[in-house]
Amino acid sequence: MKSITLGEVAGIVGGKLGGPACEKPELRITGVNTLADAGEGEVSFLANQRYKSELESTSAAAVLISDAAAAPDGLGSIIVDDPYLAFAKLQRFFYPRAIASGQRHASAVIDGSAKLADDVDVGPLAVIGANVTIGSGTIVGPGCVIGENSRIGSICILHANSVIAHNCVLGNEVILQPGATVGADGFGYAWAGKRFLKIPQVGRVIIEDDVEIGANATVDRGAIGDTVIERGVKLDNMVQIAHNVRVGAYTVMASQVGISGSTKIGKGCQFGGQSGTAGHLVIGDGCKLAGQSGVIGDLDAGGVYAGTPAIPHRLWLKVSALMMKLPDMWKAQQK
Amino acid sequence: MKSITLGEVAGIVGGKLGGPACEKPELRITGVNTLADAGEGEVSFLANQRYKSELESTSAAAVLISDAAAAPDGLGSIIVDDPYLAFAKLQRFFYPRAIASGQRHASAVIDGSAKLADDVDVGPLAVIGANVTIGSGTIVGPGCVIGENSRIGSICILHANSVIAHNCVLGNEVILQPGATVGADGFGYAWAGKRFLKIPQVGRVIIEDDVEIGANATVDRGAIGDTVIERGVKLDNMVQIAHNVRVGAYTVMASQVGISGSTKIGKGCQFGGQSGTAGHLVIGDGCKLAGQSGVIGDLDAGGVYAGTPAIPHRLWLKVSALMMKLPDMWKAQQK
Amino acid sequence: MKSITLGEVAGIVGGKLGGPACEKPELRITGVNTLADAGEGEVSFLANQRYKSELESTSAAAVLISDAAAAPDGLGSIIVDDPYLAFAKLQRFFYPRAIASGQRHASAVIDGSAKLADDVDVGPLAVIGANVTIGSGTIVGPGCVIGENSRIGSICILHANSVIAHNCVLGNEVILQPGATVGADGFGYAWAGKRFLKIPQVGRVIIEDDVEIGANATVDRGAIGDTVIERGVKLDNMVQIAHNVRVGAYTVMASQVGISGSTKIGKGCQFGGQSGTAGHLVIGDGCKLAGQSGVIGDLDAGGVYAGTPAIPHRLWLKVSALMMKLPDMWKAQQK
Repeated sequence: MKSITLGEVAGIVGGKLGGPACEKPELRITGVNTLADAGEGEVSFLANQRYKSELESTSAAAVLISDAAAAPDGLGSIIVDDPYLAFAKLQRFFYPRAIASGQRHASAVIDGSAKLADDVDVGPLAVIGANVTIGSGTIVGPGCVIGENSRIGSICILHANSVIAHNCVLGNEVILQPGATVGADGFGYAWAGKRFLKIPQVGRVIIEDDVEIGANATVDRGAIGDTVIERGVKLDNMVQIAHNVRVGAYTVMASQVGISGSTKIGKGCQFGGQSGTAGHLVIGDGCKLAGQSGVIGDLDAGGVYAGTPAIPHRLWLKVSALMMKLPDMWKAQQK
Repeated sequence: MKSITLGEVAGIVGGKLGGPACEKPELRITGVNTLADAGEGEVSFLANQRYKSELESTSAAAVLISDAAAAPDGLGSIIVDDPYLAFAKLQRFFYPRAIASGQRHASAVIDGSAKLADDVDVGPLAVIGANVTIGSGTIVGPGCVIGENSRIGSICILHANSVIAHNCVLGNEVILQPGATVGADGFGYAWAGKRFLKIPQVGRVIIEDDVEIGANATVDRGAIGDTVIERGVKLDNMVQIAHNVRVGAYTVMASQVGISGSTKIGKGCQFGGQSGTAGHLVIGDGCKLAGQSGVIGDLDAGGVYAGTPAIPHRLWLKVSALMMKLPDMWKAQQK
Repeated sequence: MKSITLGEVAGIVGGKLGGPACEKPELRITGVNTLADAGEGEVSFLANQRYKSELESTSAAAVLISDAAAAPDGLGSIIVDDPYLAFAKLQRFFYPRAIASGQRHASAVIDGSAKLADDVDVGPLAVIGANVTIGSGTIVGPGCVIGENSRIGSICILHANSVIAHNCVLGNEVILQPGATVGADGFGYAWAGKRFLKIPQVGRVIIEDDVEIGANATVDRGAIGDTVIERGVKLDNMVQIAHNVRVGAYTVMASQVGISGSTKIGKGCQFGGQSGTAGHLVIGDGCKLAGQSGVIGDLDAGGVYAGTPAIPHRLWLKVSALMMKLPDMWKAQQK
């Protein structure tokens, strides 16, 4: 078990010891935990005010906190600007990412023409197709399938049973959670009088650096041209990205969001769970969508929206409240 | 083909023969079927009043029914308190669950340190990681992946291509449908000014006894601390359970439900399809949520809710009806 | 690279050269592309009026278009009734489907009792169970699992890691995208006082000819009787079809749609993304559902619906607009 001093903790997170913590910078710390569960050798954090009352009862050695005055007497603190970020930094210290070392399980099926950097790990029963290239430090999990001609960057992690179809491109530090599917055919057909003709989906998926795709999520290949997930995007489980969508850098989508074909999402947007957009739209940079909202038109940058059809969040709050008054309004009118 | 007498059917379901069935307790019965499709050697059931008219035309040998008087003259009946439960018991008699017998397909990759009970079945091309333990009678299907240190109880069934990540715990009689993913990383990042830092997700998933997880559903591991699915919970296909959620015993969620992080769901709740909740909420025991409802605050135990934001179902019905009158209300006001 | 003349392009799509294209029927064409991206040796198309302005700036050799007059001077055209269909036909010419040739990867596990036509391809690490039959020209991708007794028709494509459980039936020209799951157990339990009893799901999934099932979508087997997907149906990624549903021929469902148990969907329906229906309903032929709509009662054929609960689309538009006026209506009433 890793163990560092409270003073070293402050150093890692760029914080300042406060309260009783000042007097014990040499105290050994073995990890981070929630306020409720932290033990004497652990540090905790207050990132969500909902849990503020737990400051009184926590057994943590010290708490990462932004407001020095908020820590009760007797509780050590480490003052930081952003306790959640500090928590992240500490966890990353205690749990560094797995390092590839070039292990190739004998049961994996690696095409002779694939080019893997020496230190790429390939798990049991993974399949790597013809002409695939994989960069240094990438880990291919058990049961993964990588289709022919796809190019995977460095230090990626493809978790169990995830799939990358042919001709796709992943940058560096990309993570696919289990069952994620990149490069399935987009949903494109033309009605031919008696049946649908499938339109061959011949574009690619381009995933830039530092992207994470959730478990059982799907990112479809372009019809012609590419589907693009820009740098730093984070997609939660079961998010659907249709063909020829572009998701702007550092946009975040919670679980079960669905983006229809050819829609362009700006940078730094936040999509709540189960929200969705129609196709061929333009969503401006920095938009925030509440959970379950449904977007049917272009959205200006920086707005906050809710509802189906999505409207400004403040208006939605007002309208939602007034809907509860509809029975009264109706009665008043009947008089 | 199994075959039993009508009298034995009554015994299995704890019912009483009625009408013409009284006179033929020795009639051979080979199975259960719907009212529309049952043949002369089959029993049927009336569990949903929507299908009551089919009593007149059914060819079933007898019908499982709660109200003796409802069966038309000439149709044999088996009087039971709960025809749907009786149907379940009969089907379980005719189709008992598969029994493991210790078959290990030669193509499976089982780590030498894994400890499997003698009678565990392991299908083709399954992967079982280091230090995994699996209890008696469990069946691991083809293409499944079980990560290191996970502990699986007895008499579980892991269907094809399902995934259990590392360090997870499953109780006894747990069923994973194909493609279900247990223990993927929760969706946790901290913004670090220029990019998101991934927060290592180091908690576990704990699944208690008698739980079923649907096809392509996802249950994420805790960030710190565990995600817990209590005893007897049933999750349908593509349900999403985020990190650190607790789902109370015997709660049922229909397909495509999404529960956001750290929400605590009570016991015996029912979630309609495509409904969802925000994070960090407390949903009381026995709550019922209509399909597509969206919960944004804590809910009292025992309530029935609908809509987004979720409101009491009776109010929702009233409001939904009055929304149809908005055009009239508007016109009346313009006068 | 395939290359044909502009005149041959017109022949393939059944169109007529117009404008400058008339003078260069021998021009070599190597593919189709969007208006924005087409180069000099490529044809483009105008199927969505949203992109009409791009006609002015495209570098395409000619554009598939329905209105000869709409093409600007100097831009070659190929006049067709349906430019999108013409685009589909051309893409199918340039990218014909993969042809199976009887390749069986040595790592695939094919039960000795399975009967595969000579030219069936089986990819690495696929699993084909006992008594499975597979027709001529079908391609089984890497990591796919086909359960015992299932029957697969001709010229199907099962993409990577898709699963077909036991006893299912697929027609000809069926496509499963990666991770699609056919034949998981339906969601059926009876409450037995202290716990749920699982009802064995003993029906099948029947998929008729020319059906496509999207990535990570799920089609559950019937409880008793079958779940049926009729001819020509197209289901997008993560669509959920519950047990005993019937989906009528040529119906199309966008991503994340959910259909609850025993509902009968008519022919030629269109479901927008994230829409859903309750169980035991009848949806008439040719119905159109807007995205995120929620159907809680039977729907007449040919209607267009939106909202939750789903109402006629025209009424929904009116009601949605008036909801924005609720603050005004409320104020007016308070006077």
